[in-house]
Amino acid sequence: MFKNLKSLRFSFFLPALALAAATPLGLSAQHEVDTSADRGPIRISGNENAFGHSMMADMAIMQELQDVNRYQREEMTALVEALALREGVPTEFILPTPGSGPVLMMAAMAWAKEGKNIITVEPGYLQLTRTFKEFGGDVKSIPLDENLVHDLDAMYDAIDENTVMIYICNPNNPTGTIVDAEKLEAFIKSVPDDIVVFVDEAYLELAPGGLLEHSVRPLVQQGENIIIARTFSKVWGLAGMRVGYAVAKPEYLDKMRRYYMGGPSKLACVAATASLQDQAFFEESKSRYIATRKTVTDRLDELGIEYADPNGSFVFIKTGIPVEDFQAKMRERNIMVGRPFPPLTEWARVSIGTEEEMDIFLQEFEDLMRSEGKLAMN
Amino acid sequence: MFKNLKSLRFSFFLPALALAAATPLGLSAQHEVDTSADRGPIRISGNENAFGHSMMADMAIMQELQDVNRYQREEMTALVEALALREGVPTEFILPTPGSGPVLMMAAMAWAKEGKNIITVEPGYLQLTRTFKEFGGDVKSIPLDENLVHDLDAMYDAIDENTVMIYICNPNNPTGTIVDAEKLEAFIKSVPDDIVVFVDEAYLELAPGGLLEHSVRPLVQQGENIIIARTFSKVWGLAGMRVGYAVAKPEYLDKMRRYYMGGPSKLACVAATASLQDQAFFEESKSRYIATRKTVTDRLDELGIEYADPNGSFVFIKTGIPVEDFQAKMRERNIMVGRPFPPLTEWARVSIGTEEEMDIFLQEFEDLMRSEGKLAMN
Repeated sequence: MFKNLKSLRFSFFLPALALAAATPLGLSAQHEVDTSADRGPIRISGNENAFGHSMMADMAIMQELQDVNRYQREEMTALVEALALREGVPTEFILPTPGSGPVLMMAAMAWAKEGKNIITVEPGYLQLTRTFKEFGGDVKSIPLDENLVHDLDAMYDAIDENTVMIYICNPNNPTGTIVDAEKLEAFIKSVPDDIVVFVDEAYLELAPGGLLEHSVRPLVQQGENIIIARTFSKVWGLAGMRVGYAVAKPEYLDKMRRYYMGGPSKLACVAATASLQDQAFFEESKSRYIATRKTVTDRLDELGIEYADPNGSFVFIKTGIPVEDFQAKMRERNIMVGRPFPPLTEWARVSIGTEEEMDIFLQEFEDLMRSEGKLAMN
Repeated sequence: MFKNLKSLRFSFFLPALALAAATPLGLSAQHEVDTSADRGPIRISGNENAFGHSMMADMAIMQELQDVNRYQREEMTALVEALALREGVPTEFILPTPGSGPVLMMAAMAWAKEGKNIITVEPGYLQLTRTFKEFGGDVKSIPLDENLVHDLDAMYDAIDENTVMIYICNPNNPTGTIVDAEKLEAFIKSVPDDIVVFVDEAYLELAPGGLLEHSVRPLVQQGENIIIARTFSKVWGLAGMRVGYAVAKPEYLDKMRRYYMGGPSKLACVAATASLQDQAFFEESKSRYIATRKTVTDRLDELGIEYADPNGSFVFIKTGIPVEDFQAKMRERNIMVGRPFPPLTEWARVSIGTEEEMDIFLQEFEDLMRSEGKLAMN
């Protein structure tokens, strides 16, 4: 960074370069992957969008640059209005945050109490439940079913008089599995009214049928006891901008607001608002994710390697190799894959990268699996 | 926003326009103020930097735009390293946040407890103490002295066995007064070790002598019981980017980290890191602030109007008019000034705008004061 800046200080080319980088129509560049030995690392570890982000976000950011000396009042209002429109709820049902992480943490902090418990699944995404535990609550982790899907019946049976919240990440992270929409709706309606069902829909746009078929947002309007978390970090490709939000009844948002430390930055607000206008980017991001995911699972099928049904931006693969070893060995091949998700320690979460990146991954993965004796040698 | 975006969707001129906006050497444009009747409102209400921000921040943002689909790992590390260098402390003494607000809130949440108290001044900046109270603690508000300066002796006398924190905003918001550096150092050293002194130095770069003469950061290294909050929202002009940070011993940062919901965005990290390299912007921002502040106080002196000694980016003026009335009447003149700061309800906090904005303010202010009978008619 510093080295770059030094040369930059005297460069008159930079704005033009930055502009050139932002100009391709459609997606930002990043499609070219150097397949030679000295290519940079392939980062398929953090569920980031390798396909880029909306050029309209870039334009909105550039247009706003001159005004970053001022706070983001109007830009936050515009974002809230755009989100309310997207979700079909009044603006007071929306709370924007820097990424959806704060939504998870605020909910945990607001509901956790000594003697109270939250129900979740194992393996699952831990940010909310870990915080819940840290703030004095108990966590009941229910195993996923044999298909690595949420076992709603078992979760329902785990409810006791001290249960205050149920966390459902749908699609689930790290497995990518999705719960049946009708079953989920029935589940939410059957849960006692004093228990909040927190549905984390971070990856849901990438499930077949997307938000329209799977999102529980119609239940918010019906007054059900739910909080939805959504993010611009995944299908929208704005992880580094930090934009997410909660959709919930004002009563729940007020309870969370006690811990609220501020919304997304001004540039994040305009980037997210502009992205929502860019249906073309959304469709391209989604379709490339789905097509590339299928390339990966088709090859896994050919190789006879087990994986969980993927509905998000990643595939959870049964490697049969302890995941730390698998990570280290892929790292030697300059590929970074996901971290351990106990108790499934011989599975690995692999994020979907670009088409070219996944071709390289599949080659290297197959080669590694063969050399580890997990596949017959060619 | 939406209207802009619609026209923008089909515009090929926008990137060039955005570029033009970013190209003037030195400060971003914004020096031209329309003095005609239909000019936009003059916003001198929120302590925002009307002089703009560093062009190097713009360049760093444009350079980073292509990669906002990925999280800000390296950029956060680079920022922490740059901040540690600036403060002269190891990196583990630095915690970056989206603006300094989260530092204030985390400290309040981490130290507040039923039966425990915090000592502050009145009028003072309320974000930390209000949160402290909301989380069950008590607030002891000590009146400022006759010069509207922190009365350190009275604050010391207010310490009891339940005091856990003392909040000092230096320069104080809304008065802009500064506490004597030697007295503050002696005060901190005399406070019992189990009490944390929280020094909010948001505006300190703008005091004569600046950080070098007034910052308590050398005391962090000496192991004193202090937390410093600093921000890029003021002299650096990055309010909308949301970057601030805490400087404190790791033990304190760990206690606050329990409530930590994430750092600044990727673009905020690179903008702040790049700004720190731009000494020319810093000097120009500071010198224009100080010169314009002096223009205002010189005129107030000529008019015989009382004000508190200003060391920040604003002047606290005794108008003799109830502040809500004053706000409303200035608003009629298309000028937005600061909110009420009880108990000094006939004073107004006026942020320093550009030279031209403050000329207009002074004209309108004088005219209003005359028509309200607070000054003899010309």
